[in-house]
Amino acid sequence: METDLDPLRSVLEERSHDGYLIDDDDSDSDQRYVSGFTAPDAYQTLVTADGEVHLLVSGLEYGRARKEADADSVCRRADYDYQELVAEHGADEGRVRTIAAFLADHGVDSIAVPRSFPTGTADGLRERGLEVAVEREGVVEEIRSRKTPWETNQIGATQSANEAAMAAAEGLVAAAEIEDGVLVRDGEELTSERLKEEIEITLLRHGCALDETIVACGADGADPHNRGSGTLEAGEPIVIDIFPRDKGTGYFGDMTRTFVRGEPSEELERRYEVTREAFETALETIEAGVAGADVHDAVCDVIEDAGYETLRSDPSTDTGFIHSTGHGVGLDIHERPSLSPTGGELEPGHVVTVEPGLYDPEVGGVRIEDLVVVTEDGYENLTEYPVALEPRAT
Amino acid sequence: METDLDPLRSVLEERSHDGYLIDDDDSDSDQRYVSGFTAPDAYQTLVTADGEVHLLVSGLEYGRARKEADADSVCRRADYDYQELVAEHGADEGRVRTIAAFLADHGVDSIAVPRSFPTGTADGLRERGLEVAVEREGVVEEIRSRKTPWETNQIGATQSANEAAMAAAEGLVAAAEIEDGVLVRDGEELTSERLKEEIEITLLRHGCALDETIVACGADGADPHNRGSGTLEAGEPIVIDIFPRDKGTGYFGDMTRTFVRGEPSEELERRYEVTREAFETALETIEAGVAGADVHDAVCDVIEDAGYETLRSDPSTDTGFIHSTGHGVGLDIHERPSLSPTGGELEPGHVVTVEPGLYDPEVGGVRIEDLVVVTEDGYENLTEYPVALEPRAT
Repeated sequence: METDLDPLRSVLEERSHDGYLIDDDDSDSDQRYVSGFTAPDAYQTLVTADGEVHLLVSGLEYGRARKEADADSVCRRADYDYQELVAEHGADEGRVRTIAAFLADHGVDSIAVPRSFPTGTADGLRERGLEVAVEREGVVEEIRSRKTPWETNQIGATQSANEAAMAAAEGLVAAAEIEDGVLVRDGEELTSERLKEEIEITLLRHGCALDETIVACGADGADPHNRGSGTLEAGEPIVIDIFPRDKGTGYFGDMTRTFVRGEPSEELERRYEVTREAFETALETIEAGVAGADVHDAVCDVIEDAGYETLRSDPSTDTGFIHSTGHGVGLDIHERPSLSPTGGELEPGHVVTVEPGLYDPEVGGVRIEDLVVVTEDGYENLTEYPVALEPRAT
Repeated sequence: METDLDPLRSVLEERSHDGYLIDDDDSDSDQRYVSGFTAPDAYQTLVTADGEVHLLVSGLEYGRARKEADADSVCRRADYDYQELVAEHGADEGRVRTIAAFLADHGVDSIAVPRSFPTGTADGLRERGLEVAVEREGVVEEIRSRKTPWETNQIGATQSANEAAMAAAEGLVAAAEIEDGVLVRDGEELTSERLKEEIEITLLRHGCALDETIVACGADGADPHNRGSGTLEAGEPIVIDIFPRDKGTGYFGDMTRTFVRGEPSEELERRYEVTREAFETALETIEAGVAGADVHDAVCDVIEDAGYETLRSDPSTDTGFIHSTGHGVGLDIHERPSLSPTGGELEPGHVVTVEPGLYDPEVGGVRIEDLVVVTEDGYENLTEYPVALEPRAT
């Protein structure tokens, strides 16, 4: 992938730094993005003022890094006498001295670092005379928020896998019998856990993984962070929120649907329609140049007009619409930009969730969520999954 | 779980700090361990000089943190006017000021932090007049290396799930037909990818997840970090290395077996026997008081005596035994202690892998790995899986 590091180069130039250094493993998405490399143990990526990318890796990762990384050069710790330095100064100090030698080798003695940069490394380099300043605006996160077409395709591919998983879960709900007010399949109560297993196995067969998924019924679903457990009940809303990651590319998808088997209450049906209207209003509002805060406000308008609370109308409410409208998705499941009271201007290539919801322990939760990419004059929906309260056989 | 934070208290006392602060999400195992809490977004854990544990979390996590965390108190960002501070000073500075207010509220103005502590937070707190010093020895990692019986049981449970996954993979290999020198099942070539899917689905059904697994045949297996791909061949060693994590407890397991279908070469059989001898020698050497380096040396002795290179006999070799003998396993897949040239004294409760191997692109890879807990007079093996080159039907 071709990444556009120009905004980072500008920051270095403005602030007269020789380079930008990341010291982290691939769980840090900035690291993964800038290096084009993944490794479970920490490695270092240096972007110099001329925009070149240099990696420092262990001997074990060297061969793979040379093949896979998006880098102008790959250096080995052994090139800077890592083992000898560790033997002489201990693991921590030896590691810092190795990084210092790597920086010196590239003519760098003043660096900008991300906020998450390890204080151990920062202070160690300072003790060795380097200037280390935190880049507080998150320029790499900002670069990452504008997806290339290639990236949007990867997110779309993960979202397709997500749709297969949602269909598998919806199919189980649709096919269940209702006995004594609960969902039953093959003589056993259908549970949140059973649906999650089906979702995970489906994702796995599509090359995706997920740490967690939400299948929350009734009062569980009224807490947006509750993962859900136990038997699924008839007449109660079942919130299914799936956010898988492609194991190869690292890009996430994100989608939520709410289903009811049996007869929903009138209030529940009304809440579903209000949520759907808020959802559609948000989509209509999205385009490049509009602020994320405006999209969120449009959602709050719909929900408040329908007589429900939002965090805008009552900052301390724990019922109604009690989260933001959406967030960026990419190599992180939560990244820039945001569709929230603080959301700034949307730009083409921003990939965001749109996920209004209504919550009340008395009624349960309702949430509808798609994933879209912002375009000059609107959005392209990366989700092709129908929106309906009644589950279809799949 | 009762954690013993006394060594951390001693560090604070020695260095006259008021507290130890962690600012990370649950992907940092020290954070997870000390707080007894998990959350996907960063939160703060403060250990004060008197050993009390105080959490600072977002409003969304507050209810769950109060229920689940191992803490003396849980504070909300809102308690320190987080939203107002962000509105006035921006997200980054507002966040730092909130943390500073939380520290002041607990009478803390001098803190020790882990090496990985974010430089953005450290420098921000320093600008606000706090003393921030890096604790470079990794006292929490050190505490974590000594497992409680409860922790050892969790690791053992993950290892049991791991054994089920290994059995599923071994069963596929054993049941395959051999056609034209490759493994075939139901008319299709049996691949590394197919085995990995079987392993992952089995783990998933046991509540475990894994990001990666190794099923590496032939030359692929000669690179210890190669995950493997493609068709499995008869007569070639198949290295299967599985390191799953329990999704509930977060504790890892780790095990490797090497199998051959069809006729192994004499050289391959010899390498398997040498590896097994090194493996058994390592196990016999392990007990509290012995250095990890001594266990590693015992393995190197066996392998060098058999005529193969090790990194001890030739630091630049890329064939023979080209990694360390083992590593600690717990909430991280690689943690303290190590069975390597720098490995210090083993203590009761240390959980370590024992995983000698022999590698050569001409022959393929061989590795045998169990997971054991160190005891006063030896070890207890957390692995009950047979060691054999020929796969059994399962």
